[in-house]
Amino acid sequence: MASASVGWGPASNKIMTPTIVRTVARADAQVVRALGELGVATVHEAQGRTGLTRPYLRPIYPAARAAGSAVTVLSQPGDNLMIHAAMELCQAGDILVVTTTSESTDGMFGELLAVSARAHGVVGLIIDAGVRDVADLTAMNFPVWSKAISAQGTVKSTGGSVNVPVVCGGATIVPGDVIVADMDGVVVVPREAAAEVARLGRERVAKEEKTRERLRNGELGLDFYGLRAKLTELGVRYVDVDLKS
Amino acid sequence: MASASVGWGPASNKIMTPTIVRTVARADAQVVRALGELGVATVHEAQGRTGLTRPYLRPIYPAARAAGSAVTVLSQPGDNLMIHAAMELCQAGDILVVTTTSESTDGMFGELLAVSARAHGVVGLIIDAGVRDVADLTAMNFPVWSKAISAQGTVKSTGGSVNVPVVCGGATIVPGDVIVADMDGVVVVPREAAAEVARLGRERVAKEEKTRERLRNGELGLDFYGLRAKLTELGVRYVDVDLKS
Amino acid sequence: MASASVGWGPASNKIMTPTIVRTVARADAQVVRALGELGVATVHEAQGRTGLTRPYLRPIYPAARAAGSAVTVLSQPGDNLMIHAAMELCQAGDILVVTTTSESTDGMFGELLAVSARAHGVVGLIIDAGVRDVADLTAMNFPVWSKAISAQGTVKSTGGSVNVPVVCGGATIVPGDVIVADMDGVVVVPREAAAEVARLGRERVAKEEKTRERLRNGELGLDFYGLRAKLTELGVRYVDVDLKS
Amino acid sequence: MASASVGWGPASNKIMTPTIVRTVARADAQVVRALGELGVATVHEAQGRTGLTRPYLRPIYPAARAAGSAVTVLSQPGDNLMIHAAMELCQAGDILVVTTTSESTDGMFGELLAVSARAHGVVGLIIDAGVRDVADLTAMNFPVWSKAISAQGTVKSTGGSVNVPVVCGGATIVPGDVIVADMDGVVVVPREAAAEVARLGRERVAKEEKTRERLRNGELGLDFYGLRAKLTELGVRYVDVDLKS
Amino acid sequence: MASASVGWGPASNKIMTPTIVRTVARADAQVVRALGELGVATVHEAQGRTGLTRPYLRPIYPAARAAGSAVTVLSQPGDNLMIHAAMELCQAGDILVVTTTSESTDGMFGELLAVSARAHGVVGLIIDAGVRDVADLTAMNFPVWSKAISAQGTVKSTGGSVNVPVVCGGATIVPGDVIVADMDGVVVVPREAAAEVARLGRERVAKEEKTRERLRNGELGLDFYGLRAKLTELGVRYVDVDLKS
Amino acid sequence: MASASVGWGPASNKIMTPTIVRTVARADAQVVRALGELGVATVHEAQGRTGLTRPYLRPIYPAARAAGSAVTVLSQPGDNLMIHAAMELCQAGDILVVTTTSESTDGMFGELLAVSARAHGVVGLIIDAGVRDVADLTAMNFPVWSKAISAQGTVKSTGGSVNVPVVCGGATIVPGDVIVADMDGVVVVPREAAAEVARLGRERVAKEEKTRERLRNGELGLDFYGLRAKLTELGVRYVDVDLKS
Repeated sequence: MASASVGWGPASNKIMTPTIVRTVARADAQVVRALGELGVATVHEAQGRTGLTRPYLRPIYPAARAAGSAVTVLSQPGDNLMIHAAMELCQAGDILVVTTTSESTDGMFGELLAVSARAHGVVGLIIDAGVRDVADLTAMNFPVWSKAISAQGTVKSTGGSVNVPVVCGGATIVPGDVIVADMDGVVVVPREAAAEVARLGRERVAKEEKTRERLRNGELGLDFYGLRAKLTELGVRYVDVDLKS
Repeated sequence: MASASVGWGPASNKIMTPTIVRTVARADAQVVRALGELGVATVHEAQGRTGLTRPYLRPIYPAARAAGSAVTVLSQPGDNLMIHAAMELCQAGDILVVTTTSESTDGMFGELLAVSARAHGVVGLIIDAGVRDVADLTAMNFPVWSKAISAQGTVKSTGGSVNVPVVCGGATIVPGDVIVADMDGVVVVPREAAAEVARLGRERVAKEEKTRERLRNGELGLDFYGLRAKLTELGVRYVDVDLKS
Repeated sequence: MASASVGWGPASNKIMTPTIVRTVARADAQVVRALGELGVATVHEAQGRTGLTRPYLRPIYPAARAAGSAVTVLSQPGDNLMIHAAMELCQAGDILVVTTTSESTDGMFGELLAVSARAHGVVGLIIDAGVRDVADLTAMNFPVWSKAISAQGTVKSTGGSVNVPVVCGGATIVPGDVIVADMDGVVVVPREAAAEVARLGRERVAKEEKTRERLRNGELGLDFYGLRAKLTELGVRYVDVDLKS
Repeated sequence: MASASVGWGPASNKIMTPTIVRTVARADAQVVRALGELGVATVHEAQGRTGLTRPYLRPIYPAARAAGSAVTVLSQPGDNLMIHAAMELCQAGDILVVTTTSESTDGMFGELLAVSARAHGVVGLIIDAGVRDVADLTAMNFPVWSKAISAQGTVKSTGGSVNVPVVCGGATIVPGDVIVADMDGVVVVPREAAAEVARLGRERVAKEEKTRERLRNGELGLDFYGLRAKLTELGVRYVDVDLKS
Repeated sequence: MASASVGWGPASNKIMTPTIVRTVARADAQVVRALGELGVATVHEAQGRTGLTRPYLRPIYPAARAAGSAVTVLSQPGDNLMIHAAMELCQAGDILVVTTTSESTDGMFGELLAVSARAHGVVGLIIDAGVRDVADLTAMNFPVWSKAISAQGTVKSTGGSVNVPVVCGGATIVPGDVIVADMDGVVVVPREAAAEVARLGRERVAKEEKTRERLRNGELGLDFYGLRAKLTELGVRYVDVDLKS
Repeated sequence: MASASVGWGPASNKIMTPTIVRTVARADAQVVRALGELGVATVHEAQGRTGLTRPYLRPIYPAARAAGSAVTVLSQPGDNLMIHAAMELCQAGDILVVTTTSESTDGMFGELLAVSARAHGVVGLIIDAGVRDVADLTAMNFPVWSKAISAQGTVKSTGGSVNVPVVCGGATIVPGDVIVADMDGVVVVPREAAAEVARLGRERVAKEEKTRERLRNGELGLDFYGLRAKLTELGVRYVDVDLKS
C-alpha cells in the first residue's frame, strides 16, 4: 500500500506517527491536461471502469471542471490544521485531496484557504467532508467537489498526514495520482498509467464519434452492438400483448 | 397488476421469464401536453394526491421539464442491456422509465443513449439509478430525473423486461401511463385517467388564480379557507406572552 | 426552555395544549440587515461557532440569501394548517421557520403560500420538511431552505403551535431570533445577542481582509497563524520519500 | 394497475375517492404455510428473483418469521385511522401490509393494535413506517417488519384506502398476495403464482441439499457450477505474484 | 432558552465561552422511577406527544431500559474531553446526555468511561454520536442509546460545555430534565412537568388496560373509538369488488 | 498502491485486466489470534487510530467475533462469481473480504457459500454489500459483517479480481492483512505491522487494567489524565447557576 518507510510501515516506531511527505512525483502536465479534456466518464471507462469515487462527492457549482496532481491530506474530522500544512507543498497544477479519519460534514475549507490555494497554483479541491463560502468560491471560479456544504467552523488541534495514500470518496488516492473531476464526479488515474489512459481515452472518443453518428441516424445499439443475439441467449422473450387492454 | 399472460403470470413456465412487451397503448398526445403544462404539483393534486414518486428523483438541471408516455425498463443493477432493447419500442413523445431489481447508483444512461433516444423521439428519462455525461445532457437539453449522478459504467450481461409494470421512485408505473416531470419531481397519471386529470387540473388552476389574487391582496388563508373554526375545534389556544421577556 | 405559562409548562392542563403565541419581540431591523450582509459563515464564527443548522437544509436556488426575525411553526407532518395560522402574525422582515413533530419531506409550502407570505412582508422560509412549486418560487425570488423538494400535498387536520421554541435542522430556534441564510446554510442568532454578534462579525471581516491580502501574496497560514510550532508539538514529522518511486 | 371500478379508475368521480375493498381472494392456506417454511431467500429465487422488498424493512426481533395473505392499508403519514378500518376485514392467517402516501417513521402500530390483530387471527405486520411498544410485541411474539422503531404517536384524521394495490418497501403488493417474511426480509408472491412458486421452491431446496453436501466435502462451486470456463471467457487472468513482497 | 447568565447570553463577553454549570435541579427520584416504569411510548403520549428524540438513537442491546436526570454535554465531534468534565458533576440516578457541535459517529464513550460513570451512580448514556466496547457495556448491563457503534477513538483537545441546554436526537434537553429510554427510543420530560406527566401516564395505563381487554375479546377500535362516523365524514367508501378476479 | 505487475499497473495492457492473485503472504497465526483476543477497539488504538472501517459494516448476530488473514474480492455489484473464484485460494484461518465496484446491498453470500467457506477453513466474511440466509449463518455460527441483510439473488456474469488491494467500508485492505472484527466493527492491521500492533495492544490492555481499577474506585479521568489544566488552558469556565430556577 505504501513503501516501508512511511504510513503503515513495518517498523514499529513508525506505526503511529503522523507524517508529512515533502516529495511527490507528478504526472506530465500535458497528460494531465489531456485527461482533463477527456472528462470523468471517458477516463473511467478508458482505465477499465476503475478509480471512480462514490457519487456523493458533488461539485459546488454546475460548470466545475478540473484536472491536477493529487496532494493528499488526512485530517481529524472538524480540524483543518493539516490543510494548512499541505499548502506549502502544493505546486502549480496540483489539486488538494482531503479526507478525514472518520466521517464529518464540517466546513474545513473556505474562501481564505481558496485564496491561499490559488496563490500556490492549486486548481481545485476534492474533500470527503464539508466546504463553506461557496458563493465566494463560485465567484472565484475555484472548483470544489465535496460531501456537504456547511459553514461549520473547524479547529487546528490534532496532527494528521500529508501526501500519504488516502481513501477519499471510497477510492484509494496516492499522492501524485491524476485527479479528473467534472459534473459527473471524480476519478483518480494512477500516475504511472496516466499517459496510457489518456491514449486509450482518445481512442474511445474517436470510436464514440462514429457510434454517435449512427445513433443520431436512428440506428439501434441493439443492432450495431450485436445485442439481439445476447437477448435470445439470455432467454428474453418478446410478446405483443397490451397490458392494459 | 398485469394481465395473465405476462409478468407475474399464473402459468408456471412464465414466472421467471424476462419479457419485452412490444405493444403499448398510449394516451392522447394533446392530453399529455396539457398535463405537462399543468406541472407536477397541480397534476398530483388533481388526481387526489396520488402518483408522486419519492423526492429523491431529481432533475439533472434546473429548467428540466417533460411529459410523455411511459416506456418502462426493468434492469439488473449496473446493467443497461434492457435500455437498448427498449429503444426500439419508443415512439415520438415517449419517456423512458428505468428501474433496477435492487438499488444502484450506477450511470446506466449517458450522452450516447440520449442521442439515440432523441433520434427516436424520446422526450426524457426517469431513472431510479444513476446517469452520466450530465454536462452533455444539459447542453442537449435532454431532461433526466435520477437518483444519482455517477460516471460508473455498466455491463450488458443480464436479461430484464421492457414494458411491464414497474416500481420507480416508490410509485407503480404501467407502460403507457403519462409521466409529468419538472423541478418539483415526477408524477405518474394512469393512462385511462389522463384526460379527466387534465380537466380537473385546469379547474384547479382556474380556482387557484382567484385564490392567488386574494392572497396577494393580503387576505389570509385562515379566513377564506375557514380555518379559524378548525383551530378552535382542535383546541388550539392563543396567548399573548412574549417567551423571552 | 420556555417560560412557565406556555409550551411544556408545569401546570397540568397546559402540557398538551397546542398554542399560538401572538407576541414576539424582534431584533432591531438594522441589526438584522447587518447580520444578513455578514453571511452565515461569518455570523456562525462570530458567535463562537454556534447556532448552525444541519447541512441538509439547502436553498432551492443558488442565489438565495435572506435574514429576518423568526416566526416559528410546529406542525404535524404532512399538515400545513399551522403555517396558515402563523401568517397572520407575520410582520415585514420576518422569516418563517417551520418544523414538524416527526420527520417528513412533504411539500407543506408552495407558491400560493409564498404569495401570501410576501403580501405580509415575509422575506423567506426555513422548513425542516419539503417545499413545492420551486420553479415559481425561484421566479418570484422567494428564498426557501428546505430538507426536500416534493410536490406531496398536505392536509389541514391537526393542531400545532406558533411562536414556541422549536428545533429546526438540529438547532433550537426561539421566536424573534435572527435567522441568517445563504448558500452556506442557515444560522440562528439569539435576539439578545444579535447586536453584539453583528459587531463581532464586522471585526472578523476586517481582520479577514488583512489575512486575505497576505494569503493572496503567497504567505502561508502555517506561518502567520503560527502552526509550525503546533505541528512540532503534536509530533508530526516531515519525510522526503517519494511513495511510488 | 387495478380494475376500472376501484383505485385510479377512469371515471372522474372515482379518482380521488379513498376506498375500502371488503372482498379479497386469498391463496390456499397450505400453500401459504409451504411458502413460509421455504423462507424468503428460497421463495425469492423460486419466482425468478422477484418480489423482494427493499432491505430497510427489518424484523423487530431476531426470531421473527411469518407468512400470510396480504390485507393492504394505504395511510396518510402519521395517521393510523385506516389500520383500524382494515382490522375488521382481517381473517385468520392474514398479514397486515401498511404503507403511507409519503415517507414517515411514526409509530403507527403498537401493542394495543397487536392485541386486536391477534384477536382477529392476524399473523404479523409489514409496515413501511414505524412501530412502537416493541418490547411488548416481542413478548407477545407478534412479528413486525418495519422501517423504523419509533414511539411517535399518530392521529386519526385523514382517509385512506384498504385492500388496494400498494407499494411497500419498493415492491408492489396486491391484496391477497402471499407475504413471506423472516430474518432475510420480506418477499411477496402473487396469489395466482403461489402454488407454483411453492413447488419450484421445494425443488430448489432438494437441489440445494445435494449442492450443500458437495460443498461441505470441499468441492468448489467453481467446479461444479462450471465457472472456470466463464472466468476464462471473461478474460480473468491468474498471476502468482505476492503484492507485498 | 436559557437564563441570561450562561449559554447564548446577551452579555457580549459570554457569547463564545464554553461553560460548565455545576448546579442542576433534579426531579424527585420517585417521579423519575415512575416515569421509567411507564416507558417511552406512554410518557410521550402522556405529555401530548412531545419530547421524543429521532428514531436513529437506538439501544445497544435489546433489554436496555433506563430513566434518570439529564446531565448534558456539548462536545466537539471526535473529542470526549467534556464527558470527563461532566463525570465529576454526576450524581446517583443521573443519565449522561452527550451531543456534538456537528454530526459525528466516533466512539466517544467506551467501557472505561462506563466504569467511571457507574462508580458515580450514572444509570445510562444517551449519545448523538458513537459508542464502543459494546460487548463490555452489554456485559456490564450499562445501557446506551446512540446513533452509531464505532471503535473510532477520540481526542481531548477542544473545549465544550456541560449542563447547558442541548439538542440531542432532534429534541431539546435541559439539564435536570427526566430522560426515559427503552427499546422504543428516548423521550425527555421537562423537570417541572415530570410529576404531572407521571400522573397522566398512570391514568393512560389504567385506561389502556380496559381497551386492551375489549380488543382481546375481538371488539374493533373502529367501534369503540367511534371511527366509523369519521370514515363516513371523510368520504371513505366501501366496495365489494375483488381486485384480481 | 500495488506492485507494478498487477492491479492498476503502469503497463498499458494490464490496466483493464481482471486478475486473480494466487499467492498471499499471511501473518503468523499466533499473532492473528492475539489480535483477535485484543478486539477491535484496542487494536485500532494500538496502531494509532488507523485501519477502522466505517461503522455501517455491522455483525449479523451479537456474539460475532473473528480474526483472520484477508483474502480480498472485488466484484461487480449483484454478481458473486468472484467469491466462488476466491474460495479456491482460501486457507484455514482466512477471512473473506468482499467489495463491489459500486454500491450494492444485494445478498451476494448465503448459507451455501458459508458451508463451502467453512470447508476451506474460512473463519468469517466482511462484505461491503448484502448477505442472506442470516438465520442459517447464525445457527452455523459463521460470523459476517455486512452493509445490509438482503435476500436479493445475484448473477455470475462479470469478471472481477481476487487478492488485489481493495477499499472495503472505507478502509484500504491489502491481501494478507489481518482483519479483526467484533461487535464494535472491523479493523484492518497491515501484515507487516501485525506483531508490533499485538505487542502495543497488550501493553494498552495492561495499562487500562490499572486505569479501570482507579475509575472503579471513583477517581476521575479529569484528575489522573490531567485534564483540569487542559480545561483551564482552553478557557472553559465553571459557573454555579441553575438554568431553570
